[in-house]
Amino acid sequence: MTAEKIAIIGGSGELGYGLALRFAQAGENVLIGSRDEKKAQEAAARVKAAVPNATVAGLDNAAAAAQAGIVVLAVPFSAQAAILKSIRAALKNAILVDATVPLAASVGGRATRLLGVREGSAAQAARDLVPGIPVLSAFHNVSAEMLHDLSATLDCDVLMCGDDAAAKERLSALVKLIPGLRPLDAGPLEMSRIVEGVTALLISLNRRYKVHHSGIRITGVG
Amino acid sequence: MTAEKIAIIGGSGELGYGLALRFAQAGENVLIGSRDEKKAQEAAARVKAAVPNATVAGLDNAAAAAQAGIVVLAVPFSAQAAILKSIRAALKNAILVDATVPLAASVGGRATRLLGVREGSAAQAARDLVPGIPVLSAFHNVSAEMLHDLSATLDCDVLMCGDDAAAKERLSALVKLIPGLRPLDAGPLEMSRIVEGVTALLISLNRRYKVHHSGIRITGVG
Repeated sequence: MTAEKIAIIGGSGELGYGLALRFAQAGENVLIGSRDEKKAQEAAARVKAAVPNATVAGLDNAAAAAQAGIVVLAVPFSAQAAILKSIRAALKNAILVDATVPLAASVGGRATRLLGVREGSAAQAARDLVPGIPVLSAFHNVSAEMLHDLSATLDCDVLMCGDDAAAKERLSALVKLIPGLRPLDAGPLEMSRIVEGVTALLISLNRRYKVHHSGIRITGVG
Repeated sequence: MTAEKIAIIGGSGELGYGLALRFAQAGENVLIGSRDEKKAQEAAARVKAAVPNATVAGLDNAAAAAQAGIVVLAVPFSAQAAILKSIRAALKNAILVDATVPLAASVGGRATRLLGVREGSAAQAARDLVPGIPVLSAFHNVSAEMLHDLSATLDCDVLMCGDDAAAKERLSALVKLIPGLRPLDAGPLEMSRIVEGVTALLISLNRRYKVHHSGIRITGVG
């Protein structure tokens, strides 16, 4: 296990809860953040029920972010900016890992369509909101449903984007804690636009093939 | 083998030649098109040298397109519009399969960056230029290098985009002729924007991991 705490902002949501559950299962010290502290505590209780020896607590987002070395942002795109503004004063010596996908569905549109983000991607928008904090993006393409099912082994590569090599190394070690996930360095943060788009592609494939857990593997590397 | 001829427009280029070679190996009747008929004939001779019983001919682009039931466009983005205009009068009862990726490299920029295409994607731009012809997009993410090496088995899914289900069925049968490629229906033509982007992602991964043949697999479907 790593020495630092992992905060999952939006940890009562589908993806966030799944990541919290899996990191807790791996023995990490997990802080679940939510805008509603009570929801965070409920999610933490669910993690404890599923993983009896879990080290997990539920807090409001800013309190969770303040204590963590790695802060994963797993919120709908429509909530991303406001939540980042609410936690940025609390981020100290932390790495921010943005998992936001700008799906049109987050503002009432289609799940297979993306919104244009002026900064280039949700990850770049995040970076602009937390100057001075290393920002990576990752986990966009991981099936929340598979994360929730502790009997399932994931089958997905985690494409990490970002401009801070040391931060990527730390994130890479975390990704490897979840069986079946493989971290890959996809390049600078601007590549996140494409990785975020892959989520819309997977949603489209899920619909066509009537499944709920498609993922992506890169062949021919490593 | 399928009854109709396959034209590869840009068949003397890297991706185009690779597809021509593999379809010829599969026993298909292949027409290699090039702006320069001599280059097309040279490429056809290379295919014949590699696949002795190949049925292949080299022609100028319009002549190749005129005889084919499936016309694959494998040209740099910077040449796409002009070449489509030069062949559109020749397209009759054909399906156009666009493999164009709007890499910034095609206009002197970076290979990992994409140009914005006003129509949404290179495939949608192609559709606007050939009204009345079914347009699909596919083959963007397939390694040309792996196609060229007949001893290599591909390891890549071919994400097909388009709005014509019957055309997709025909293309799907063709994709399956190349060992190691799996056709997947990625949705309507507008999804091509994301699939085209994946090529830039693979180029980024090739550089990071010092390989030349990364590919993509979708897990959890089919």
